[in-house]
Amino acid sequence: MTGFFGDIPKLTYQPDGDSEFAFRHYNPDEIVMGKRLEDHLRFAVAYWHSFAWEGGDPFGGRTFDRPWFGSEMEKAKLKADVAFEMFDLLNVPFFCFHDADVRPEGTSFAETTRNLEEIVDYFGQKMEGSQTRLLWGTANLFTHRRFMSGAATNPDPEVFAWSAATVKTCMDATHRLGGANYVLWGGREGYETLLNTDLKREAEQAGAFLSMVVDYKHKIGFPGTILIEPKPQEPSKHQYDYDVATVYGFLKRFGLENEVKLNIEQGHAILAGHSFEHELALAASLGLLGSIDMNRNDYQSGWDTDQFPDSVPEVARAYYEVLKAGGFTTGGTNFDSKLRRQSLDPEDLILGHAGAMDVCARGLKAAAKLLEDGTLETLRAERYAGWDRPESKALLTSDLASIEARVRDEGINPEPRSGRQERLENLWNRYV
Amino acid sequence: MTGFFGDIPKLTYQPDGDSEFAFRHYNPDEIVMGKRLEDHLRFAVAYWHSFAWEGGDPFGGRTFDRPWFGSEMEKAKLKADVAFEMFDLLNVPFFCFHDADVRPEGTSFAETTRNLEEIVDYFGQKMEGSQTRLLWGTANLFTHRRFMSGAATNPDPEVFAWSAATVKTCMDATHRLGGANYVLWGGREGYETLLNTDLKREAEQAGAFLSMVVDYKHKIGFPGTILIEPKPQEPSKHQYDYDVATVYGFLKRFGLENEVKLNIEQGHAILAGHSFEHELALAASLGLLGSIDMNRNDYQSGWDTDQFPDSVPEVARAYYEVLKAGGFTTGGTNFDSKLRRQSLDPEDLILGHAGAMDVCARGLKAAAKLLEDGTLETLRAERYAGWDRPESKALLTSDLASIEARVRDEGINPEPRSGRQERLENLWNRYV
Amino acid sequence: MTGFFGDIPKLTYQPDGDSEFAFRHYNPDEIVMGKRLEDHLRFAVAYWHSFAWEGGDPFGGRTFDRPWFGSEMEKAKLKADVAFEMFDLLNVPFFCFHDADVRPEGTSFAETTRNLEEIVDYFGQKMEGSQTRLLWGTANLFTHRRFMSGAATNPDPEVFAWSAATVKTCMDATHRLGGANYVLWGGREGYETLLNTDLKREAEQAGAFLSMVVDYKHKIGFPGTILIEPKPQEPSKHQYDYDVATVYGFLKRFGLENEVKLNIEQGHAILAGHSFEHELALAASLGLLGSIDMNRNDYQSGWDTDQFPDSVPEVARAYYEVLKAGGFTTGGTNFDSKLRRQSLDPEDLILGHAGAMDVCARGLKAAAKLLEDGTLETLRAERYAGWDRPESKALLTSDLASIEARVRDEGINPEPRSGRQERLENLWNRYV
Amino acid sequence: MTGFFGDIPKLTYQPDGDSEFAFRHYNPDEIVMGKRLEDHLRFAVAYWHSFAWEGGDPFGGRTFDRPWFGSEMEKAKLKADVAFEMFDLLNVPFFCFHDADVRPEGTSFAETTRNLEEIVDYFGQKMEGSQTRLLWGTANLFTHRRFMSGAATNPDPEVFAWSAATVKTCMDATHRLGGANYVLWGGREGYETLLNTDLKREAEQAGAFLSMVVDYKHKIGFPGTILIEPKPQEPSKHQYDYDVATVYGFLKRFGLENEVKLNIEQGHAILAGHSFEHELALAASLGLLGSIDMNRNDYQSGWDTDQFPDSVPEVARAYYEVLKAGGFTTGGTNFDSKLRRQSLDPEDLILGHAGAMDVCARGLKAAAKLLEDGTLETLRAERYAGWDRPESKALLTSDLASIEARVRDEGINPEPRSGRQERLENLWNRYV
Repeated sequence: MTGFFGDIPKLTYQPDGDSEFAFRHYNPDEIVMGKRLEDHLRFAVAYWHSFAWEGGDPFGGRTFDRPWFGSEMEKAKLKADVAFEMFDLLNVPFFCFHDADVRPEGTSFAETTRNLEEIVDYFGQKMEGSQTRLLWGTANLFTHRRFMSGAATNPDPEVFAWSAATVKTCMDATHRLGGANYVLWGGREGYETLLNTDLKREAEQAGAFLSMVVDYKHKIGFPGTILIEPKPQEPSKHQYDYDVATVYGFLKRFGLENEVKLNIEQGHAILAGHSFEHELALAASLGLLGSIDMNRNDYQSGWDTDQFPDSVPEVARAYYEVLKAGGFTTGGTNFDSKLRRQSLDPEDLILGHAGAMDVCARGLKAAAKLLEDGTLETLRAERYAGWDRPESKALLTSDLASIEARVRDEGINPEPRSGRQERLENLWNRYV
Repeated sequence: MTGFFGDIPKLTYQPDGDSEFAFRHYNPDEIVMGKRLEDHLRFAVAYWHSFAWEGGDPFGGRTFDRPWFGSEMEKAKLKADVAFEMFDLLNVPFFCFHDADVRPEGTSFAETTRNLEEIVDYFGQKMEGSQTRLLWGTANLFTHRRFMSGAATNPDPEVFAWSAATVKTCMDATHRLGGANYVLWGGREGYETLLNTDLKREAEQAGAFLSMVVDYKHKIGFPGTILIEPKPQEPSKHQYDYDVATVYGFLKRFGLENEVKLNIEQGHAILAGHSFEHELALAASLGLLGSIDMNRNDYQSGWDTDQFPDSVPEVARAYYEVLKAGGFTTGGTNFDSKLRRQSLDPEDLILGHAGAMDVCARGLKAAAKLLEDGTLETLRAERYAGWDRPESKALLTSDLASIEARVRDEGINPEPRSGRQERLENLWNRYV
Repeated sequence: MTGFFGDIPKLTYQPDGDSEFAFRHYNPDEIVMGKRLEDHLRFAVAYWHSFAWEGGDPFGGRTFDRPWFGSEMEKAKLKADVAFEMFDLLNVPFFCFHDADVRPEGTSFAETTRNLEEIVDYFGQKMEGSQTRLLWGTANLFTHRRFMSGAATNPDPEVFAWSAATVKTCMDATHRLGGANYVLWGGREGYETLLNTDLKREAEQAGAFLSMVVDYKHKIGFPGTILIEPKPQEPSKHQYDYDVATVYGFLKRFGLENEVKLNIEQGHAILAGHSFEHELALAASLGLLGSIDMNRNDYQSGWDTDQFPDSVPEVARAYYEVLKAGGFTTGGTNFDSKLRRQSLDPEDLILGHAGAMDVCARGLKAAAKLLEDGTLETLRAERYAGWDRPESKALLTSDLASIEARVRDEGINPEPRSGRQERLENLWNRYV
Repeated sequence: MTGFFGDIPKLTYQPDGDSEFAFRHYNPDEIVMGKRLEDHLRFAVAYWHSFAWEGGDPFGGRTFDRPWFGSEMEKAKLKADVAFEMFDLLNVPFFCFHDADVRPEGTSFAETTRNLEEIVDYFGQKMEGSQTRLLWGTANLFTHRRFMSGAATNPDPEVFAWSAATVKTCMDATHRLGGANYVLWGGREGYETLLNTDLKREAEQAGAFLSMVVDYKHKIGFPGTILIEPKPQEPSKHQYDYDVATVYGFLKRFGLENEVKLNIEQGHAILAGHSFEHELALAASLGLLGSIDMNRNDYQSGWDTDQFPDSVPEVARAYYEVLKAGGFTTGGTNFDSKLRRQSLDPEDLILGHAGAMDVCARGLKAAAKLLEDGTLETLRAERYAGWDRPESKALLTSDLASIEARVRDEGINPEPRSGRQERLENLWNRYV
């Protein structure tokens, strides 16, 4: 034991207790819609924000004081020790990481890879004594200055090559650790100014890159899902994987829509001008719903604040879409959430996750009740019931001239019907 | 002559004159990159804002006082008379209209269609004595209360039928008047709340609808281009044709990407979180650049303000993308611009257009000079020059394992190079 | 009885019932922090959205079909009949109105005033048989075209005069009906373009106008509170009463900070870049908290959507600030909320209000529990406890040189302490 | 000479030259409205972005490679050498700095102060051989972790004390170097969450702090202006000095409105929902216009991008307000602009400034021509001409009842008049 968390106890479900270090709503074994709550939610801790981030922002540096900050391998192992202690305290079934979160950067690609392998070994050992598994791995292709102009979409083919090589090592690591998915977030796949950018070339580079990722998955027999994480901006002024609809078009363009799914984040949805539930519902309707990053944005801030979720109605909307789509398969609920930079204490780290887990549990259980009740889906179906008539279906394969003749001759003159939004919102609030 | 415009003279090019009623920069006959300026810009007046809009906003009603306001056919003809007088005063080569702008609504579909046909006849007569042609026609499927829940994507199949029938009549009208394009803007194709919405059904309805439009174009031999106009929100909270990337995905989904192009509007780009030039460059890179609506948004307002363009640098960015893509073919520059509601006087209507035409002329000429100079494109190409080497091209069809081996064994370690943004902005400002 | 609401029953508190037409959380007689819930919340129906608005938006016209639409006095009385029937069905203690919502516009100021007086008489009669009182009256100085360039801040002194005269009649009406407050919302006090605007003049006009309003209040002995309602934009590009902080500066400038309080709206706070609770807390800290308009904005829309509140955590934040400041005195909770324009049916009108009342009741009760628990306020006070020491207080009246000497000589070197945000959010979620 | 800028020549005015390293529009000696252009614009280089910033953003670290990065005094002096070389190459009359930009942080307040003094001595020597003077100095009270919860508004009185002591040393430094102004930007004077914040206390702390700053100015006889720089958010979720109107209210609250002026930044105006010219015009109308930070925001990014200005029309709007208000006195044009993080090369640093200086020169010259022409001001005055009549002026000191009687009896019925926005925009574009 590292002692980092002092005497904070392992958190358990204590619905009526008084301790801050307990779950009031998250009971992993509670059965909801025929499945354990833990198996619904599939919580994951994000290594980067919880262990690698130092508390900096654009106007200030490190605020946290962690014994593992530094670039030596021993520090990386101490970081892993603390991480697995936290996984255990929180009883989370999963974690996620970037290569750069877990291993020291070397002076060459080869050394960096060896560092990664050493940590993957170390993770492997730790996972033997832990219930926590790997939800997904990913490559950090945005922090180092070599990526400043992009990774796959870099004007320099050597950066493309470096990036491809790095993804190979990260997919290997993820496969070795039994990861359920592999994620690509195009952190700097985008541009700062159109004046120096060739959109066509960069899209083709990105398409070729992703095709190779898919090929490599099949080559090594990785059984997990390849996920793309959309984001519209930040750090780049414009990022190519803007939102769900944009990534769908990209996948169709390169024929990858059956090979890749999406990891969707609340904060990124907001930055793109959508609600989180919109992005989830759209992805589900396109067969692309993979996994979620459950970190909220501050509605008054124009950048990605990556805060722990704190609104039950908001997460309920999200889980309603997830449950309606059949629930997670390989995906889960990753907390890509970071403490506020003023939250210095080890217990803040525990409480941030614990509160978020309770919020998610309340949200999912409320959504499940509403879905099981069925009224909302019945009302939705009734709204479209006219389309279930054969002559309505026939409209969809008719032609303008025939339809026009019918409308003219039959004197069709449709009368609007209430959309019943307030009634549905009231219904929603009976469950949430 | 209706007398509406009093003694405002026909506007001509007077570069050094002092009259407000003249062009200082727009000389239709000036040759730019081998083509007359008029043939580059292809200006169009938008019937709706200039003649049908009454000056209302969500907090107040009609401010304009026009002799043609009303619902009688005689008023519609007076409106047409004034419109063609303005086309003549401004010497614009094109105009655009919705059915609802030009004809009185009837009490049945048949009567409404007869009204449209009567006005189309009237337009036909007026066009005989005018140089102004039709850039595009379109159907207004959003103002009448029957469309409150959408047109093609309505839960009621009768509204779908009505909409299809209406588009048929509008395509007929456009074809008869020799329109160069036919536009679809999905004014209420979207939703107010996900709670009552079935995204999948609605997308399939939209796909079927657009397929019928394309089929009808071929059936009647309409030689123009079918254009979709993206917009992210307003009036609906979420509109399906969100932006260029979204519509591309939609077209690919229904196999229509070679049949349909885009009409792109500055204000809609802004609402979607993009620059106008981004949307144009993206459309060009996807082969979808069709036409533009050149009306700006106010950067401090969160809705579509549809103002006349007033910034030469902004329109220069737009025309640079248009010219780089080869210029307009069937498309043009439509002013989907409306007067501010305090701009009551007939001369405001003339001055709004005249100023905008000058701004566009300055912008296009600046963009053309920069493109002819070639430095910007040379610098752009140089940035990607590494990709022109055969071994770089080979990277795009390689595989992760081979690339990784090469990076590792050859000790590849790319060094970042300046993106030169400030230098390119300075270059830009030497021309604009 | 008009029959408009059909057989919808009077809504009562039925916590476990199944009817949509009941309150599940709003029990007017429940005692919370020593006061009846009704007396805490002081709900008011807004006449304009619920009875005068026709369902239009910038892209479409009337969707509602109400028997009282029209400009005759009989229609105005029918509207009042239905309104009071709804007040009774909902059992709301208050309503609010603009002059233009309730009376037909005349052809002269005198006729318009007579119309208002006739309706005020009619209201007076209806209120004799009703429990519903007037929370506030106000003048609509923005809908008619005469106000297109502002009311008090108009460049035309005649509009200033018309506006002053109108406010006089509306204050008279409010006083006569026993209104608890009188509100001024500067609907078009702002500008569309700085190019034609003299900020200094317009501010001085606004200051003179408000001073006259305050004088008139005292002259007629109106015991209510004068309230200004801040809004940053819409309909104007920029509105002078931008937000709470701006109005505070305006009041200080004209020496009115002890005469006027604020009516704060959630949607306006959002448009100004603030949270609702920020605006409430700031107003409270400045002694300006008067009343609230409890209508939310859609977070994905850039304009004022004026929707019924549907999020318990959001309203709880608001009521927490209200309760912490001592609760409402003359103010209350006005629903400046409108149905979505697709919500056509009479029952939508009832359900919109009923759902909102329940949401507010849940929110206020949660906030009250948290406040009574006291932990949050204890933790807040602890964070600042260092300032309670005499030597800390002395700092505030010291001087830079002395402080510098002390810091230097005593080697002061402050260590940061956790801000505990996540812990406080968890605490919040135990109550909400 | 450090050799950092290689063979980049001293930039001079070469209107028709071809070199990138020249001014095409900025001729310091050109006389505009009776004053040298240099004396109008009063350009200043910002030490922090140009010399202290390392190219990091929230998603990546240092990209620049500068020989002076590090924390030793020798590096600080090398940085100063390069800075003064750049001031000389650019021929800028001013620079600006924070203490933290120029000196190494010590291990105690005393050591840090000694470091500052040593660098101030060094600056003093360098300024003897340079034409570049100090526009303003300021204290960085936001980067170090001790300021994470604010400086003057910190819950910990020791941080208040540290901050006061630091400002004392920075005012001393500024005074010694002959600075024309002293600036306070409240980098972390604001909050992350209302849950842990006491707005009232924090405002009182801020008021006391500013009062001490003003007192100290008088005590030491500093002849410059004290300036506050408003910003609405970032890094804090909410910052107290939100915008011009908010700071005005704050100054009035603490009786400091005649002691303090404002330093207004384009990017901050945008983040607050205003145009830059709005903030300038408002400050001028309140007698608070002091100085400007001329760095633009990217309109598609929700954070402060601090880019070099590149739009002549935008800066022309700003300088129009400055000139109309009489021009700068102690203030000037500070480039709080940073290179894009991909702009790695020394010449990018020169070109960023050179391009911005030309853009500003074009903008100011255009604004001056328009102001000298006088048409815009004549039209503005005409719009309000009705108010110049004695009976109109009398309205402002009348009372509601008298005005109402007059409106009623005289049958006043004002007719709206065109606001002429498009005409004024056209006029504008004849000059810009």
